[in-house]
Amino acid sequence: MADVGPTITPAEMADLVESLGTIGEQPGGGIIRHVYDPAWCAAREQVATWMREASLEVREDAVGNLFGRLEGDSPRTILTGSHIDTVILGGRYDGGLGILSALAAVRGLKQHLGKPRKSLEMVALCEEEDSRFHGNFWGTRGILGLIGPEELEAHTDANGMTIADAMREVGLAPDRFRDSVRTDLDAFVELHIEQGRILFDEHVPLGIVDTITGLYRFRVTLEGRTDHAGTTPMDLRRDALQAAAEFATRMTRLVADVGRPAVVTNGWWDVRPGAWNIVPGHVEFSVDLRHPDEAIKQRLAADIRQLGQDIAAQRGIAIAYDIASDVLPMAMHPSIKAELQAAADRCNVKWMPMVSGAGHDSQVMASGVPTAMLFVPSVDGRSHSAAEYTSPEDAARGATVLAEALRGLAY
Amino acid sequence: MADVGPTITPAEMADLVESLGTIGEQPGGGIIRHVYDPAWCAAREQVATWMREASLEVREDAVGNLFGRLEGDSPRTILTGSHIDTVILGGRYDGGLGILSALAAVRGLKQHLGKPRKSLEMVALCEEEDSRFHGNFWGTRGILGLIGPEELEAHTDANGMTIADAMREVGLAPDRFRDSVRTDLDAFVELHIEQGRILFDEHVPLGIVDTITGLYRFRVTLEGRTDHAGTTPMDLRRDALQAAAEFATRMTRLVADVGRPAVVTNGWWDVRPGAWNIVPGHVEFSVDLRHPDEAIKQRLAADIRQLGQDIAAQRGIAIAYDIASDVLPMAMHPSIKAELQAAADRCNVKWMPMVSGAGHDSQVMASGVPTAMLFVPSVDGRSHSAAEYTSPEDAARGATVLAEALRGLAY
Repeated sequence: MADVGPTITPAEMADLVESLGTIGEQPGGGIIRHVYDPAWCAAREQVATWMREASLEVREDAVGNLFGRLEGDSPRTILTGSHIDTVILGGRYDGGLGILSALAAVRGLKQHLGKPRKSLEMVALCEEEDSRFHGNFWGTRGILGLIGPEELEAHTDANGMTIADAMREVGLAPDRFRDSVRTDLDAFVELHIEQGRILFDEHVPLGIVDTITGLYRFRVTLEGRTDHAGTTPMDLRRDALQAAAEFATRMTRLVADVGRPAVVTNGWWDVRPGAWNIVPGHVEFSVDLRHPDEAIKQRLAADIRQLGQDIAAQRGIAIAYDIASDVLPMAMHPSIKAELQAAADRCNVKWMPMVSGAGHDSQVMASGVPTAMLFVPSVDGRSHSAAEYTSPEDAARGATVLAEALRGLAY
Repeated sequence: MADVGPTITPAEMADLVESLGTIGEQPGGGIIRHVYDPAWCAAREQVATWMREASLEVREDAVGNLFGRLEGDSPRTILTGSHIDTVILGGRYDGGLGILSALAAVRGLKQHLGKPRKSLEMVALCEEEDSRFHGNFWGTRGILGLIGPEELEAHTDANGMTIADAMREVGLAPDRFRDSVRTDLDAFVELHIEQGRILFDEHVPLGIVDTITGLYRFRVTLEGRTDHAGTTPMDLRRDALQAAAEFATRMTRLVADVGRPAVVTNGWWDVRPGAWNIVPGHVEFSVDLRHPDEAIKQRLAADIRQLGQDIAAQRGIAIAYDIASDVLPMAMHPSIKAELQAAADRCNVKWMPMVSGAGHDSQVMASGVPTAMLFVPSVDGRSHSAAEYTSPEDAARGATVLAEALRGLAY
């Protein structure tokens, strides 16, 4: 094993980002590359071409994950990559940068060091963003055997097409989805943009993830009484909006007082009937609570629910909660994480430990494969936006550390 | 002049309400009777029939107000009535009850007392609710000469039809709108449902309006920053929704602390982008502030605006206000109001002075004609709803007092 892996250059990363980033790009800016659509096919074809040029063994699985393999002495496999789909009008970096870093790292290692001890493989995972079908982590779940057969007909897109039909349309055989399952994986490493502004604000070029945060989502429904805005005295109202506004501000203060990394967001609101001159009688809004410590997450969730009940009772308003998600935090694998930390140190790249506040393929992969993640900065914390940007220098630093870590794991 | 006017019975009022209330009623309940639509025409035809049966002189004016006249010794006229149009899925009482009470009162007076000293006239005003065209008080403004010629082509309905074309469709000549102007009116008296719950809660059957409240409406726009709900720490957010929620709760407290009759309502909300996992970057919501004292209204408006600016500045959020309405309070005419009070006392009907929190034809009429208003209770304060209800007993009491007041004014 050589002393050090390949150094990936900013120019190499900039070229790759530019080439992949134009596929699915819309006239007004922003990428639409949804699973099994033409832009998705074209992007995969581009990645396959690059992998073939690097003499990797190219293969797609039954659900549409695309692999480039460098066979090692052992069939046991070190896997790296990310997802190739984007949200509606997404950017060039979310998902894409993990695939391009994997390409740069694996082809660099092959050129630099030749055949590895363990097999080394990169992947363009087919779906993570939940933008076309509501069955996200489709690619990773295929690899782990976590797809239920009923899902093939249950998930439909906005046009009513089932995910099974969408798969057939691009030449995949949905009935063979179980063939995607892998049992040869010893590690998965994913590089991703931060999607927040911690690295950006701290001027640290690399984050190594300790935990992917736990998520608790519920819908709040408040039922008060619709009244005329002019003729109903303030003291006789049962205004659902005022109850909701008090609840939102107080839950936010409660979570903010806990400090980082606790977060809560009230992202969508439905206020009815929604007229100038009518006191709102019915309000629904969302609560998205995240914490990487499951016990704290559950305690905060209970405190918030109690707070809402108290406010509603005080105001004579009915309150109901519908849980939409309750996802456990996922710790990254200690030894894979240690490999990433050691690689960053060997490359002299400054790094900091981080919590991932967003969900990732790694969160699902970690339930079956030793997994760890690298974060690179997003300028201004932008993500899910045409404005996503990671400098070529930061991208190259991240890819170089990834290559060095893969060297540690596979050579 | 006889000692007392006619007594209107609950049965008479119940019959009238039932007959008019089925015109424009929808299969699921609620009335759609928009100006110049078929239900509106049918309702007017029913009213015209009743007026003819009572031997009133029936006439429509250029904008579609429908009159029934009892000629007196003098051509000077005492007018009573209300609007015949409804909101979308409105009830049987808002507007309608004022017309039916006018009918019962005028025909009762004619039967009971014959020819009056001053002429007595009832009216079904053509439009008040602003539900089809955004040019409300159309009927009353026609009578006062407050319609601008440009309005005929400027107001369009949801299908793009101009108000001029809608008038032509029902046989009116829009170019003659100025012919609607009246200069012979000595008084206007309108009976209306309360639309709130003060009379209902106080168990008082009649309100006599002192003032129609002043209105100040503005749209608040808050511009923060859209961020990822998972990856953006609470202390780095510029959450437009949180700023809006704090502003709404604090302005509500501020106005509630002033006490009755000050009211403020945040009726409609637009929170963008409106997703579970995105911190809202852009929020617009409405402020509808009412007070019958113009000085207090303006001071409250200024305090609210300042409060919003302080909250926005503290949170690093941009705030803007767009004024939608700034309507002066309108005092009812002292001598007409005194006539109503005296009539209620003569009829032994308990009454209380009230502020009207809603706008009414009377508010506009008062700018050119001595005007006063009677309120009858709305059960549960319901209005603009299929659930509107005023008991036949309360309706009869109101109509009897109206008749007695008209007797005082016209005989």
